[in-house]
Amino acid sequence: MLHFKIQPIAQEWLAQARAHQDQLTKPPGSLGYLEELGVRLAAIQQTLRPTLGKGAVIVCAADHGVTAEGVSAYPSEVTAQMLLNFRAGGAAINQIARAADAQVYVLDVGINSPTPSPERVRSGTGNIAREAAMTRAEAEQAIQVGAEAARRAIAEGATILAAGDMGIGNTTAAAALTAALLGLEARAVTGRGTGVDAARYQNKVQVVATALRRAQARLGELTKAGPLEVLAELGGLEIAAVAGVFLAGAEAGLPLVTDGFPVTAGALLACRINPNVRDYLFAGHRSLEPGHSRQLEALGLRPVLELDMRLGEGTGAVLSFPILRAAASVMAGMATFAQAGVSQTGGL
Amino acid sequence: MLHFKIQPIAQEWLAQARAHQDQLTKPPGSLGYLEELGVRLAAIQQTLRPTLGKGAVIVCAADHGVTAEGVSAYPSEVTAQMLLNFRAGGAAINQIARAADAQVYVLDVGINSPTPSPERVRSGTGNIAREAAMTRAEAEQAIQVGAEAARRAIAEGATILAAGDMGIGNTTAAAALTAALLGLEARAVTGRGTGVDAARYQNKVQVVATALRRAQARLGELTKAGPLEVLAELGGLEIAAVAGVFLAGAEAGLPLVTDGFPVTAGALLACRINPNVRDYLFAGHRSLEPGHSRQLEALGLRPVLELDMRLGEGTGAVLSFPILRAAASVMAGMATFAQAGVSQTGGL
Repeated sequence: MLHFKIQPIAQEWLAQARAHQDQLTKPPGSLGYLEELGVRLAAIQQTLRPTLGKGAVIVCAADHGVTAEGVSAYPSEVTAQMLLNFRAGGAAINQIARAADAQVYVLDVGINSPTPSPERVRSGTGNIAREAAMTRAEAEQAIQVGAEAARRAIAEGATILAAGDMGIGNTTAAAALTAALLGLEARAVTGRGTGVDAARYQNKVQVVATALRRAQARLGELTKAGPLEVLAELGGLEIAAVAGVFLAGAEAGLPLVTDGFPVTAGALLACRINPNVRDYLFAGHRSLEPGHSRQLEALGLRPVLELDMRLGEGTGAVLSFPILRAAASVMAGMATFAQAGVSQTGGL
Repeated sequence: MLHFKIQPIAQEWLAQARAHQDQLTKPPGSLGYLEELGVRLAAIQQTLRPTLGKGAVIVCAADHGVTAEGVSAYPSEVTAQMLLNFRAGGAAINQIARAADAQVYVLDVGINSPTPSPERVRSGTGNIAREAAMTRAEAEQAIQVGAEAARRAIAEGATILAAGDMGIGNTTAAAALTAALLGLEARAVTGRGTGVDAARYQNKVQVVATALRRAQARLGELTKAGPLEVLAELGGLEIAAVAGVFLAGAEAGLPLVTDGFPVTAGALLACRINPNVRDYLFAGHRSLEPGHSRQLEALGLRPVLELDMRLGEGTGAVLSFPILRAAASVMAGMATFAQAGVSQTGGL
């Protein structure tokens, strides 16, 4: 059974941090959203001098049976090929992580490849248009695998944690999962993924709608079904692992950063399993996938970056680390008006 | 006489960099605006492997005679107080620069204080509602002071350069200058600055309009007047120095990063003096000041960050350095599809 003990954020620390922010040598509010980020980091760390050191990103990778329905522009083999690329340091996430002082952890929770992996729960999901993605036991196991990876990264010194995703076909699973959890239509949450054309896009919407109908026939009204049941029906394995990363990260009291559409599906799932996770979440960026904005609205998260990215791998999450570090530095290091001898109110 | 020898960006390097970007192991365009940033950095450095090391920000500070008209929520003395705060490391720019690996250079080009400064051109500008901000010779000198500061920072190892501003009253000067250079109404470019109330805001609009009428009476149609003449009429000294920072930075071939409204007024001025400056400019962020968006449109620049900041000091510029570094790293370090053995086209 899953059990995560997650403390809600301390409201008194939020209030103290806000009051402190207004004493710093700048017109109140003049650092905009950076001030709110600093306040939340202070409250999470329960200090007026928050610091963020080394970061980590857990890139969760798995394959999707639903690729048989022609939902992606890339063949399924690319998932395993990209895993090798991550390990060789040649992918975008490796470069962005280097620039943003973050360690990359690659987690094969369900790739369909002959090379074995100790964390793999199964080799790809079932085709969700026709069958369940996985069993409920596998769903729990995939969450635990993600949670274990997060604990390892934290033990190795991570002070801020992101999740990333790799899995050809996973925007289809993320769309189905998001529609199910938020009670939305397939069309509202289905996007172009890595770049399908108009005909394939129409097909993808139909595949998501079919998967939703199938799951609903099994579970009844999906917004009222249990999160693990919905996950088992619609997948994917890497989305389950992402949920585990966020659940264990929140349990450890770390700031957690979401990436794009599949990762934020994992965040939604984690919050459905334990609503206190929300207090630790920061949205690294807003993806071009239309369903991602629906997820962010549902979570009440404003993205740090809006750069029209849609790659995944954790790239948008890790790219926001330096901004979060700067928000912490402002809180921790700026002088107050009194300390600096700067006039606080206008004399005109 | 001002003379800056600035090469336009090499179109063939832009084309080569774009072609290389499309060979990297990601769906084409999936890193969004980050790809364009990387391409421009590659072209500026004339390499497919751009790198950005240490950064620098030149915070140009000066006072404004127009504060006598009640345009700011803070008294004029705050400019000198904040200069001490910058030097003591207690301001927002110090913390953000530390987080973003940038050196802060503080330049007193025209503060109204008894403490002397070798770079000060004069102690504050004239009140632009009633008289010229400075002479044309002083305008040139202030530009040279900024240019010299940029050269010093570059000699000390800066590989990317931002300008910052400090000067109570300077959004009034920036509004007048922007309206004059772009042919806009006072109301379109006047904002709340550090936070004036509605009555003071109406007064500020009137002051800007008065300054524009006065300058027009002296120079004729302002969009057709020479940039140095417009600068001398409307100020300010720190805006002139910012123009000098960008002119010298472009001459040295460095990527240059704009901050908010006063700094981008300096960038507009620099581009009017030598249009090739534009090729080196990156917009660090979009400020909440309404006139800032008009400036960015005129320059054709998309901001890297949109965090509702409106502090100045170079904070929004320097905060974007890590994103620009990551854009360079992606170009420089990612594997191509061929190198990584990843399938490039869909097989479905």
